[in-house]
Amino acid sequence: MKRLVALLFFFLTANNSLAETPVKELQKTAKSLFGIIPAKEKLPDKTTLEQIELGRKLFFDYRLSKDGSTACVRCHQPQFYSTDRLPQSMGFNNNKGARNAQSILNLKHQTIVHWRFDRTSLEEQALKAFTTPLSLGNSSVEESLARLRGAGYTSLFTRAFPKSSNALSLENAAVALGQYQRSLTTRAPFDRFLEGDTKAISLDAQKGLRTFIDVGCVSCHNGPAVGGRSLQKFGVFQNYWNLTQAPNPDKGRFEVTQKEEDLYVFKVPSLRNISETAPYFHDASTSDLRTAIRWMGKLQLNKDLSDEQVQLIKTFLESLKGELPKNYREAPELTSESYAGPNL
Amino acid sequence: MKRLVALLFFFLTANNSLAETPVKELQKTAKSLFGIIPAKEKLPDKTTLEQIELGRKLFFDYRLSKDGSTACVRCHQPQFYSTDRLPQSMGFNNNKGARNAQSILNLKHQTIVHWRFDRTSLEEQALKAFTTPLSLGNSSVEESLARLRGAGYTSLFTRAFPKSSNALSLENAAVALGQYQRSLTTRAPFDRFLEGDTKAISLDAQKGLRTFIDVGCVSCHNGPAVGGRSLQKFGVFQNYWNLTQAPNPDKGRFEVTQKEEDLYVFKVPSLRNISETAPYFHDASTSDLRTAIRWMGKLQLNKDLSDEQVQLIKTFLESLKGELPKNYREAPELTSESYAGPNL
Repeated sequence: MKRLVALLFFFLTANNSLAETPVKELQKTAKSLFGIIPAKEKLPDKTTLEQIELGRKLFFDYRLSKDGSTACVRCHQPQFYSTDRLPQSMGFNNNKGARNAQSILNLKHQTIVHWRFDRTSLEEQALKAFTTPLSLGNSSVEESLARLRGAGYTSLFTRAFPKSSNALSLENAAVALGQYQRSLTTRAPFDRFLEGDTKAISLDAQKGLRTFIDVGCVSCHNGPAVGGRSLQKFGVFQNYWNLTQAPNPDKGRFEVTQKEEDLYVFKVPSLRNISETAPYFHDASTSDLRTAIRWMGKLQLNKDLSDEQVQLIKTFLESLKGELPKNYREAPELTSESYAGPNL
Repeated sequence: MKRLVALLFFFLTANNSLAETPVKELQKTAKSLFGIIPAKEKLPDKTTLEQIELGRKLFFDYRLSKDGSTACVRCHQPQFYSTDRLPQSMGFNNNKGARNAQSILNLKHQTIVHWRFDRTSLEEQALKAFTTPLSLGNSSVEESLARLRGAGYTSLFTRAFPKSSNALSLENAAVALGQYQRSLTTRAPFDRFLEGDTKAISLDAQKGLRTFIDVGCVSCHNGPAVGGRSLQKFGVFQNYWNLTQAPNPDKGRFEVTQKEEDLYVFKVPSLRNISETAPYFHDASTSDLRTAIRWMGKLQLNKDLSDEQVQLIKTFLESLKGELPKNYREAPELTSESYAGPNL
């Protein structure tokens, strides 16, 4: 809310562009529009730590899928900044998901889950992954629970949920996965810039930041995750498929609500680490960041960005590439049980 | 050869069991039969290090498969000690491999590649994975090369193979993957025991080791990898399917050579980390280590091992669980190109 006020205030009072603003002023403005991912987060308590570690194990565990062929990590791979670089990700039985998988990094600073906001929370998302045949292939709660037990998780759940009378449950698995995902943030040079270090990002990146704010990208891509907190029609000024050439345009949130106002409405994605997470957009219609920036200018702001503007914004976006959390790329130690679920 | 002589000498001169032998004597005998994985390996030269790191990247890179759905690491997962815990692994298009995938750890100390020894070296294995449709889905050299180029590997190959006039080749990719795999060894408490530390493994593990040698397991499972250096008929004293209940017994190496003597002949697998790599045998016919030990006694040695013997051998085998190589569980940094190969 505070940031929304800052945003409104900024747009109502800004008569001139930021192009000539002193850097200290730019930092102050940017800080109010975005927000810092701090160097040190508050250390979670012991139980939360246990839940994070349990969530991490579940995230990497292929034994929880019907045929042992998939796991959360298959679409959100650590070597690819939590994406799989594919237009559409594959779940159980190589089922193709309908949209491009988004990174799970920095979800702590986002409120919208999935492209169409068809999940209200990370926990609901995780819970449904366990029981939606498309994802892990399991078709009932009992089947998912049998896999968790078969893979030796009972004592780990008891430790992570000491107050639960029935610790091993899908609800607790979802809590653990939510805690794990929220623990993953990537502090970037941009954050040091916001904290006052004027040399943390290059002069070109600073120019790109000025442009990003001036042309209006910031009206949607704001907050610490530089997006991820609102829904927006993809193609405000013209149909998006004019540019993306999508053969069967995805109707977006309309399919969830059946409301006219939600036609072609999607999540505004976070731009943190965007240089590492091609292809772009819900339909992966381009893998080129410059093209993505140009399309956004045209579709959302009705602006023909110059090559120089596009390049500067790209340079700014590259300053959002962050440091991966400690151990993020490291697979966890799992129990030694082999695959033991039903219906193998 | 030296170890073969030691083995022969041991069996020819051993009149008594090792049950009552002093521990120092046991260590000496075991050292000659197995071999130590040292605490510090000789540091590879700069070029070899570049090749290892390149191999590591290739190993984790899903972009090298036809549909982006698979990579070496999918069957050899770091969270599962380089296995996937499945009876049969899946490659491109979820094609099931014919046999259980073996760990790539400690291949440096093994000479036999694949269950049927149908590959003469790690390099040949890697080369064929690139062009065998069943594995990564690519059906030609050109297709695999296009994927490597598309994923931005050109400069990495040039750096790792400075003397090659045409650095980016499948042959060099195979060399890099071979180097990477040979760099992965897991030193275990057993190695410290062999070095003279009598407390490195429990008294029960020592009894298990004595039993392992006395009953004859060591005649096949020897060398530093405790196996992996010879082929053997699975079911010397009776058909293996009597015990495993295999519905369609795999003919093993016979399918490769068409020689009668190779009927039901398979690689003697390494037992390093065996407690972490269920299910067992080429057909994954059991996930229970005790059962596997009992079957081996019956099939290969015509011995009905007692429950106590089985338990002691199991305890010994657990002492072969080693420390994973530094960074082994960590996914590497890959280039930021999205999937860009042909035939997506």
